[in-house]
Amino acid sequence: MSSTYGKNIQISIFGQSHSHAIGVTVDGLPAGFEINMEELQAFMDRRAPGQNKYSTPRKEADVPEFLSGLVGNKTCGAPLTAIIHNTNTKSQDYDNIRDIPRPGHVDYTAHVKYKGFEDVSGGGHFSGRLTAPLCIAGGIIKQILAESGITIDANIKEIGGNSEDPYAAIDEAREKGDSVGGIIECTVNGLPAGIGNPMFDGVENNIAKAVFAIPAVKGIEFGVGFDAGRLRGSENNDEFYYEGEGEDKVVRTRTNNHGGVLGGITSGMPIIFRVAVKPTPSISMEQRSISYSKEMAETLGVRGRHDPCIVPRALPCVEAACAIALYDLILDR
Amino acid sequence: MSSTYGKNIQISIFGQSHSHAIGVTVDGLPAGFEINMEELQAFMDRRAPGQNKYSTPRKEADVPEFLSGLVGNKTCGAPLTAIIHNTNTKSQDYDNIRDIPRPGHVDYTAHVKYKGFEDVSGGGHFSGRLTAPLCIAGGIIKQILAESGITIDANIKEIGGNSEDPYAAIDEAREKGDSVGGIIECTVNGLPAGIGNPMFDGVENNIAKAVFAIPAVKGIEFGVGFDAGRLRGSENNDEFYYEGEGEDKVVRTRTNNHGGVLGGITSGMPIIFRVAVKPTPSISMEQRSISYSKEMAETLGVRGRHDPCIVPRALPCVEAACAIALYDLILDR
Amino acid sequence: MSSTYGKNIQISIFGQSHSHAIGVTVDGLPAGFEINMEELQAFMDRRAPGQNKYSTPRKEADVPEFLSGLVGNKTCGAPLTAIIHNTNTKSQDYDNIRDIPRPGHVDYTAHVKYKGFEDVSGGGHFSGRLTAPLCIAGGIIKQILAESGITIDANIKEIGGNSEDPYAAIDEAREKGDSVGGIIECTVNGLPAGIGNPMFDGVENNIAKAVFAIPAVKGIEFGVGFDAGRLRGSENNDEFYYEGEGEDKVVRTRTNNHGGVLGGITSGMPIIFRVAVKPTPSISMEQRSISYSKEMAETLGVRGRHDPCIVPRALPCVEAACAIALYDLILDR
Amino acid sequence: MSSTYGKNIQISIFGQSHSHAIGVTVDGLPAGFEINMEELQAFMDRRAPGQNKYSTPRKEADVPEFLSGLVGNKTCGAPLTAIIHNTNTKSQDYDNIRDIPRPGHVDYTAHVKYKGFEDVSGGGHFSGRLTAPLCIAGGIIKQILAESGITIDANIKEIGGNSEDPYAAIDEAREKGDSVGGIIECTVNGLPAGIGNPMFDGVENNIAKAVFAIPAVKGIEFGVGFDAGRLRGSENNDEFYYEGEGEDKVVRTRTNNHGGVLGGITSGMPIIFRVAVKPTPSISMEQRSISYSKEMAETLGVRGRHDPCIVPRALPCVEAACAIALYDLILDR
Repeated sequence: MSSTYGKNIQISIFGQSHSHAIGVTVDGLPAGFEINMEELQAFMDRRAPGQNKYSTPRKEADVPEFLSGLVGNKTCGAPLTAIIHNTNTKSQDYDNIRDIPRPGHVDYTAHVKYKGFEDVSGGGHFSGRLTAPLCIAGGIIKQILAESGITIDANIKEIGGNSEDPYAAIDEAREKGDSVGGIIECTVNGLPAGIGNPMFDGVENNIAKAVFAIPAVKGIEFGVGFDAGRLRGSENNDEFYYEGEGEDKVVRTRTNNHGGVLGGITSGMPIIFRVAVKPTPSISMEQRSISYSKEMAETLGVRGRHDPCIVPRALPCVEAACAIALYDLILDR
Repeated sequence: MSSTYGKNIQISIFGQSHSHAIGVTVDGLPAGFEINMEELQAFMDRRAPGQNKYSTPRKEADVPEFLSGLVGNKTCGAPLTAIIHNTNTKSQDYDNIRDIPRPGHVDYTAHVKYKGFEDVSGGGHFSGRLTAPLCIAGGIIKQILAESGITIDANIKEIGGNSEDPYAAIDEAREKGDSVGGIIECTVNGLPAGIGNPMFDGVENNIAKAVFAIPAVKGIEFGVGFDAGRLRGSENNDEFYYEGEGEDKVVRTRTNNHGGVLGGITSGMPIIFRVAVKPTPSISMEQRSISYSKEMAETLGVRGRHDPCIVPRALPCVEAACAIALYDLILDR
Repeated sequence: MSSTYGKNIQISIFGQSHSHAIGVTVDGLPAGFEINMEELQAFMDRRAPGQNKYSTPRKEADVPEFLSGLVGNKTCGAPLTAIIHNTNTKSQDYDNIRDIPRPGHVDYTAHVKYKGFEDVSGGGHFSGRLTAPLCIAGGIIKQILAESGITIDANIKEIGGNSEDPYAAIDEAREKGDSVGGIIECTVNGLPAGIGNPMFDGVENNIAKAVFAIPAVKGIEFGVGFDAGRLRGSENNDEFYYEGEGEDKVVRTRTNNHGGVLGGITSGMPIIFRVAVKPTPSISMEQRSISYSKEMAETLGVRGRHDPCIVPRALPCVEAACAIALYDLILDR
Repeated sequence: MSSTYGKNIQISIFGQSHSHAIGVTVDGLPAGFEINMEELQAFMDRRAPGQNKYSTPRKEADVPEFLSGLVGNKTCGAPLTAIIHNTNTKSQDYDNIRDIPRPGHVDYTAHVKYKGFEDVSGGGHFSGRLTAPLCIAGGIIKQILAESGITIDANIKEIGGNSEDPYAAIDEAREKGDSVGGIIECTVNGLPAGIGNPMFDGVENNIAKAVFAIPAVKGIEFGVGFDAGRLRGSENNDEFYYEGEGEDKVVRTRTNNHGGVLGGITSGMPIIFRVAVKPTPSISMEQRSISYSKEMAETLGVRGRHDPCIVPRALPCVEAACAIALYDLILDR
């Protein structure tokens, strides 16, 4: 049940890094929506590997193949399923992972959970590659939201602690055979006030639940976030005021420390949140680990393809997860 | 559907700050578990108001009354419902909130969502008071987890940026009629490896979803959290090793930057997460807001009972939310 | 998780026959709906015991006490919880059930499931008494549906095989210390076409799931139901035609063998379904059973209060379950 | 959300009759289960068209292609997705359905729900063809259940009212260009006592919810079912007794009028239920309908492939739906 999200729409992601295909089913899309396929592909391309020198050289065009849910390019009300065939798979690269879990990876925890039957090739179902179907679903939903004037934009805030020239940190890590993490900031504009719910089903709960589906995410904060814990109420409270006149008169807040959400419900101000992304655990440097078979310590040098930093490629993934979570709440009544 | 959590157990919270009662139904508890009522009350008392000079003077004993689900003090398999009667309610204190939303509060967003029909008295269903039933549910589940050696402890990490003498920041805020936020750190010990799921249903997703149910929480991070975004992979990766001998031989990591969770699944290391708590929005200082009826700016001085800092009382709430989320995952398979 | 129903609204029922109270939480009601309390009580009274000579003499006024969710009599958007205190309870009547399961009752299956910790008094959580909170929830939702012109009426179709004078069969069973079952027919008028979903989430799936929550229900059929299995397509198909003119022009079917549902979706024709209700398992006549403690055969004469026929009291329960299932689907989009 | 079932396992079905492929994702299967592919194919073949003179001549081998979830033939814990490519599709056959809804079909209700954007070709997502992926999921789960000694067998009880020579009714209907319905009886052996839950989540609720996913099902009854409404309690109650000795001593009932379920929970006796299947709505005979475009009456002769009776092919579908519902409950605790 792990790979399913949503109440009003339901996203169901499947596939392993090296299975025949990966894909997603989206159940609950409105009938009659025409998908802009070029725009979707452009969105997918932002996540795709091999697009620049900062990402892994695996050159696999992530072109969704739609199995169902469409008549032409229009949704027909039936569940939409799209897949991406896996073509460039080299399972032999991953043989030693069966015995020696990579530090920072899911190898060990998956091994315990699935009792050794897990698919270790390329990270299996835990691979970052599975964010491709997330982006198919999220990319379509972003288009639906955009029709209502709702936009979602994720940007790099810092990489390796460097907010001025983030990419320098990537270059440095790459040269050392190391990797580096970063922080992404995402902004949602155009959401009306009144979306979301109290308690367990608020905007923050749901965006958090969806965003933690992206491998490597280790934290999320809304508005001023952790800094709110360092502020006085008189500093943190966002005062209300009326903006505009007549029909256009709307309630706004002078500051947006709350990040667009109060009590789980949107205020009409932009939603702002930040996501912490850990450094890619795959590094070329030798690391200490264990051997299950020998029941003793073992060293490990991770071979195979890997990014020195996944933050740039994670941007559309954060947008996708956010879009899915918000759209599910918008469909609420 | 907002006030319901869980798949294997289901927690359903009800009540408003000034309704006849607040309470919770827990469906899915194992039959035959004997609740230690004294321990539960002690847990509730950690959250209760009026317990010390740092919290609101409202003196209402939060003693759960069990309506169903027990035979004696033992669970019988039927849904357990416990309520707390609201006695010390002064609805007249809140009359002007109907017209003038308090900055930092849910007043405005609830007003939009519920079209003016929301219960504004004392914050209604959004009141921090509703964390009392959360603590009933979480307190019982903590006892169930403790039987398996699983413990959950939340502590104050800092208040108002002060980690050395947190309470000094509360005193200072109180004197100024202001309030202050803080950061809570929570540690879970005793969880075996292999709990949780990939993608949307992992440990982090679910703890986050549950913890954001606590009003005032604005961020959550696991392990090194946001600092992971500033680290190199070689620094952040936690190397595996074997500890102990024979039957007691277990896999551990030398460091715990991952906070006990890899790929959504527990590693057997302690789960560690931190939660950002914003300053109480209720402050005595005058603030600018709006009047719905006049459709113009208006100033507001919040009267009524309020804490200068809710962080101390939020500790058991964080433990409760965490306990619920983890127990729900433990029951999986 | 057994006592919870719904996706868009969520009904959570709690209580045992002899616990302090029974009740229900309804989460997801629209804010601002004014409950007609007299009408609700009249609905509850149709289910209440002791109302006529055909039902059990337990005289307990089933008057809901609203703990939360209302401001005055209007919903405020917060979860609505209503309880009924249990006053007239005689637990001593049920002592021997702990050892000797009553034929046709849940005693044995609950004993296995809950390992002997179940509340046996009065049937515990399985008691027909728990249909009272079902009727609170369903009675409120019926009022909401009625505002849109949707009505739900359940009637006795036959009792003990007698459709002409159903009550004669009850008298006869009562005189013999026996009980008798019956068939209820329920009709829903005023539902527009287009409600419901394909496959697992259609109108029939959901009404069935909800109606089987009523103890003693053993079957359900829609439209011609089981007779459809005996018909030719040319007999069973309902031909379409246009009725009315201009704005009032609507699509109808000449016959209604489909019972208002095609492919899980409403056709705009009345929904018609029938429910089979088994005879009350509690009878005064001596029956053979077993003793757990002696691990041998034992005879049993059921004492305590019981109806010779629950069909009349089950009518509002069927309406309530149907109302809940349909309203949940109507809230879909 | 319509095409998704389950809490502990989740079945998500996708595809339209004439889309590129149809398929299913099953999330929550245990890792390490080896699927017997030949047995699965044999199960699929029972549902497949063109297998005998009683079914439609469309000759399409329903061979599942596994996209994910397996390593070899063993489940790996990741969601399992299998598809069947649609090859033999002739969309031109269905052109007039866009304008003239077929009596007894979903054409009209889908048209209203999806506002004319539905895929009408071959019935779209509502086609009986979508029971093929249901059988993939159910066929695998049947194998898992069989490992614990649980078997599920559906048989024809009667067709067209004929229980002695059911197939004669099919021949007769075929000759007349008509169709005919029937009744299926399904028996589950080997289930232990104690599976299922009270109220909304019992065995009957869930089997009913799952079985109504099969197009053409119009009724379901458990044990004596509707006949229970015609019986006395003394006739209907099933008396308990001990069978066997020592370790093998088990509780049984002398009769099985309850069909293996009491209070939503299994008794250890066989589960027995019957399902009413309506006659295929597609018939060659001319029928009256309407034309949307002309807004007036229109006659319709259904061309294209269709079965005179789908009951024989529905047998594995009933087994599949039952298997899924029961396995989901077995995974409960």
